[in-house]
Amino acid sequence: MQLLEDRIRKDGKIREHGSVLKVDSFLNHQIDVDLCNEMGKEFFRLFGGEGITKILTIEASGIGIACIVAQCFGVPVLFAKKSKTKNIDGSVYTSQVHSFTHGTDYEVMVAKEFLSPNDRVLLVDDFLANGAAIQGLMDIVHQSGADLVGAGICIEKAFQPGGDLLRQSGLRVESLARIAAMSEDGITFC
Amino acid sequence: MQLLEDRIRKDGKIREHGSVLKVDSFLNHQIDVDLCNEMGKEFFRLFGGEGITKILTIEASGIGIACIVAQCFGVPVLFAKKSKTKNIDGSVYTSQVHSFTHGTDYEVMVAKEFLSPNDRVLLVDDFLANGAAIQGLMDIVHQSGADLVGAGICIEKAFQPGGDLLRQSGLRVESLARIAAMSEDGITFC
Repeated sequence: MQLLEDRIRKDGKIREHGSVLKVDSFLNHQIDVDLCNEMGKEFFRLFGGEGITKILTIEASGIGIACIVAQCFGVPVLFAKKSKTKNIDGSVYTSQVHSFTHGTDYEVMVAKEFLSPNDRVLLVDDFLANGAAIQGLMDIVHQSGADLVGAGICIEKAFQPGGDLLRQSGLRVESLARIAAMSEDGITFC
Repeated sequence: MQLLEDRIRKDGKIREHGSVLKVDSFLNHQIDVDLCNEMGKEFFRLFGGEGITKILTIEASGIGIACIVAQCFGVPVLFAKKSKTKNIDGSVYTSQVHSFTHGTDYEVMVAKEFLSPNDRVLLVDDFLANGAAIQGLMDIVHQSGADLVGAGICIEKAFQPGGDLLRQSGLRVESLARIAAMSEDGITFC
């Protein structure tokens, strides 16, 4: 998606010798809601014929984009929570996710009452790198018996293995910007 | 706001002998984006003449509603983060927040580059009870030198002290549903 690639070139900041792309100014600290709306329209162009009933994402930075995407589809958002809080009781689906950023494992959970075999689910997230978060969400969808239609990703680090692994497993993955390589000198898109 | 009060009566669940209101089915686990859009329109009716330049909220459950509200105002969202991650570097505004839910303190932070004395800020959050999160956000806005226009809250537990304390401090607080009392028998709105 040209609009997103242009924005990444303009405002993205590459750190830690090319391993980290910061998009804090428009995607995951400050959020440009107009850009998100354009991304939502593009996801709807790609997945709008699939009878999606629910958008599933993971807290925290996926929630904003997912809500705006959900408006384009006219369906609710469900976000997986990273820890058990007082505000969720009853039975939940859980899955373990490894965070490569923080070097730790964490649990994600979704209340069972909000996913059923009648749902057709689109996963949405801001980044795809190693694919661990998306795999956790896939696991939860499979536990629920819902149909998993695919994953809509804003930015895929295509030089990391997550996207290929997910596609090889049969998941339809649509990434609006796919980064082939990045260094402190710049970014190359696929 | 009648629409929100009706939805709370219909789908809210009161737990722990009247101390916890669960709105997981439409506001902070699953999110009804159409309802959020109606709330956004109401916040715009209340604050639309104030020249807002930025919506500030706090992760995680505030992000979704804030993004949809921000669309109504045509401005970006900024969400305060709860811990320092690799993806934020540089200088940040920080404030300590006490969580009455979890009985712990945590730090919230906003990158300095995204708030300036030129900004006019509306705080948005899903719940107001003791007001600790809003006080943390106020502190950050004050550090930045931006103008703080007010706070737009979805659900205020008016039987807890946060709303009164904030209003007494001079903050304009607009809550779309104000709960006067709740028990396992039901809810009374102000």
